[in-house]
Amino acid sequence: MSNPKLQAVLDRIDADFDNSLERLFSLLRIKSISADPAFAGDCKAAAEHIAKDIATLGFAAEVRPTAGHPAIVAKANGSMDGRPHVLFYGHYDVQPVDPLDLWHRPPFEPVVTDHADGRKIIVARGAEDDKGQLMTFIEACRAWKQVAGSLPVDITILIEGEEEVGSKNFVPFLEANKAELKADFALVCDTGMWDPNTPAITTSLRGLVYDEVKIKAANRDLHSGVFGGGAQNPIRVLTRILGGLFDDNGRITIPGFYDGVKDLPPDVLEQWKKLNLTSETFLKPIGLSLPAGEKDRLLIEQISSRPTCDINGIVGGYIGEGSKTVIPSLASAKISFRLVEGQDPAKIRKAFRDYVTSRIPADCSVEFGDHSSAPAIALDWNMKPLAAARRALTEEWGKEAVLMGSGASIPIVADFKRTLGLDSLLVGFGLDDDNIHSPNEKYDLKSFHKGIRSWARILAALAERNP
Amino acid sequence: MSNPKLQAVLDRIDADFDNSLERLFSLLRIKSISADPAFAGDCKAAAEHIAKDIATLGFAAEVRPTAGHPAIVAKANGSMDGRPHVLFYGHYDVQPVDPLDLWHRPPFEPVVTDHADGRKIIVARGAEDDKGQLMTFIEACRAWKQVAGSLPVDITILIEGEEEVGSKNFVPFLEANKAELKADFALVCDTGMWDPNTPAITTSLRGLVYDEVKIKAANRDLHSGVFGGGAQNPIRVLTRILGGLFDDNGRITIPGFYDGVKDLPPDVLEQWKKLNLTSETFLKPIGLSLPAGEKDRLLIEQISSRPTCDINGIVGGYIGEGSKTVIPSLASAKISFRLVEGQDPAKIRKAFRDYVTSRIPADCSVEFGDHSSAPAIALDWNMKPLAAARRALTEEWGKEAVLMGSGASIPIVADFKRTLGLDSLLVGFGLDDDNIHSPNEKYDLKSFHKGIRSWARILAALAERNP
Repeated sequence: MSNPKLQAVLDRIDADFDNSLERLFSLLRIKSISADPAFAGDCKAAAEHIAKDIATLGFAAEVRPTAGHPAIVAKANGSMDGRPHVLFYGHYDVQPVDPLDLWHRPPFEPVVTDHADGRKIIVARGAEDDKGQLMTFIEACRAWKQVAGSLPVDITILIEGEEEVGSKNFVPFLEANKAELKADFALVCDTGMWDPNTPAITTSLRGLVYDEVKIKAANRDLHSGVFGGGAQNPIRVLTRILGGLFDDNGRITIPGFYDGVKDLPPDVLEQWKKLNLTSETFLKPIGLSLPAGEKDRLLIEQISSRPTCDINGIVGGYIGEGSKTVIPSLASAKISFRLVEGQDPAKIRKAFRDYVTSRIPADCSVEFGDHSSAPAIALDWNMKPLAAARRALTEEWGKEAVLMGSGASIPIVADFKRTLGLDSLLVGFGLDDDNIHSPNEKYDLKSFHKGIRSWARILAALAERNP
Repeated sequence: MSNPKLQAVLDRIDADFDNSLERLFSLLRIKSISADPAFAGDCKAAAEHIAKDIATLGFAAEVRPTAGHPAIVAKANGSMDGRPHVLFYGHYDVQPVDPLDLWHRPPFEPVVTDHADGRKIIVARGAEDDKGQLMTFIEACRAWKQVAGSLPVDITILIEGEEEVGSKNFVPFLEANKAELKADFALVCDTGMWDPNTPAITTSLRGLVYDEVKIKAANRDLHSGVFGGGAQNPIRVLTRILGGLFDDNGRITIPGFYDGVKDLPPDVLEQWKKLNLTSETFLKPIGLSLPAGEKDRLLIEQISSRPTCDINGIVGGYIGEGSKTVIPSLASAKISFRLVEGQDPAKIRKAFRDYVTSRIPADCSVEFGDHSSAPAIALDWNMKPLAAARRALTEEWGKEAVLMGSGASIPIVADFKRTLGLDSLLVGFGLDDDNIHSPNEKYDLKSFHKGIRSWARILAALAERNP
């Protein structure tokens, strides 16, 4: 380490860590569930909470309305010509918390506790995704400001409140505020590490198509004693359609689904084989042992480079205690596809809907509901920031930072490129066992602490004129 | 009509009809949902309400505990040797009311309103099944008692509170009280008419096996971005299994399912063809047009004499508003089978479970939940009461009463035969469009009024020594 200012910043981060944690807790206590309109007030409160906090760091911070939950735009420009200008992105909204009865503690009462294997963890909805992650960056800015009086680069912080529901209103907001959001590149903190001790930069992301299917049969619920055998049952229709989505080899059967999907280059496949991702390490911790994807693919391909389909929810008929001999009039399911390079989200959605529609009996009807859609992304990294960030991460963690593909989708990355012309650098500190979108979401205390230190180093590295 | 006493009873029924309706409404206001433990107090209240009412008719009426919701035993014995002694059966418990938002009015606030086609109807949960039906009998007894001072036959009224949840505790109650429940035969009022103007006596009933399947995959909910493609999804497993239950011809694919099922005798099939039950008359009113059962069978066979399978409920993953990219850890379904003569409920349940179990991936698990089970019943009717009841019904309605098969199950009929040695006479006034077990359950005002008059006539006919 040749930068005495940076060392002072890192020392400050260590000394102030209990306060950093308390500030994260304050944010985690706000129930900012974007999917449920009942929590709109909480979303607004979260935005105001963050804007007020960032303002104390010298940012000109504003809570800005969108057609949905508000966004935050905060600028700290040093006005020094030639300094890099970064746009930092995160989101304050969180996933719904159901099934609530599987949480060991109330989801919005954060605590630090011990993981089964001894790791210290922060448990709460949003602990990782994305409140914990975005606070690593804000806390790094705070330490720089407090120690050095200013930030090493020009920064615009942009935080949205609808990432978990597809950013439908946020993308028009980007379009409408292009000029104001100009920067050299984006920093996105919503991804993970390779393992608890190995940092990573994510260089490819799967896309997403999320659809909803509602099948209607009779004009009312029926008694199976009177109508059973004669009347069509929409759950029967739905399960028959969904039950046919996969063949015996785990391949998706929708015509045209794999069109345009390329095999991995042989050298990448060789590299991935060496990473040795096995069922033992990847599936055993979640109680499984058999890779569920295409049988002729490696597990790492199944989760990173191959397109997938998951039924995320299904409901129809009587789901209470006991029994009811009903033939329901409605049944519905939520289905999503993870896409890879070469697949067009609009074509995939249409192919799925055609597949379903062609299997609906003549006297039943089907309705579809649009949710998110985003293409897959392969980032082209010949840019300076990648090397700088990789060096900074390697210094902080003492292990070479891995460049990896992610199975998840971060649609905003494509939106930044399209609307603002920005490439994104994806650095995050999540782990596969963080239970994001699930009960008992957690963030390793180490991820939070070393995440803050990592950003402090990355900001310093980005500021170096001749790295 | 040769019986002046009977004529006075019928006149009394007409004159007192508004009060009969008000008494039915009092019972309908009690939320006696047996499936949900939250309504246990309401079930007890319904039992006490009925017992108190019957006691005013000269019955020695008692609310009797069972291991579940209480039963009512009420005896009015004339002690006249040689009089027939009938055991009347009904149930005060009702089905759950969900989905509540499809009800046009609160389900426990009964009203008389106009059906779309002009018929007057009583709307409430239980309006037909079985509170409306059982009150036809009680009101007939009331009129006999008030006009003649006594009942024409010896009567034991037996009302249970767990019919809608499988009568698990009621059957042991029958066993334990055999001696007290002795009678010549049973009258069961829980079935329907042929059409709104044609009375019917039901002479065969389908059986029922109701099962629940819970499939477990991972040890927690997962994020499809991280695990999608690699981790098994229990909804995928469940829909694949349920989606394979029917072949392209509507036949159930479970091995052995049709073992022992006989074709209809040719003369019965000819009779049924003449009844001319068509998609136009039977399916169109419920918004459907295509018979959903075995393609090589008549619609009337599909709903009366053929075994069937229905998925009554299914749930898994995220079912709230919006989207959630979750791979759930659990998925479950409720499935029921209507059985016909020759099928053994225990064998069918085992065949279904074997079918499911053999299709569960090695690293997933399945649990089953038992609900009702009852064999099909074909009643052998060479007994005097059938002829007497048929004559009485034909006189009241002005149309020959039809002897018909029912697609529904009334397990108690088998239990009466097995435990008490009693044959049952099944007379009821329900209609196919009564929405039983569904939102907006109704009972035709005509069914209620002429149902009371029908029982008054049946009691008189049963009392005739030489019919």
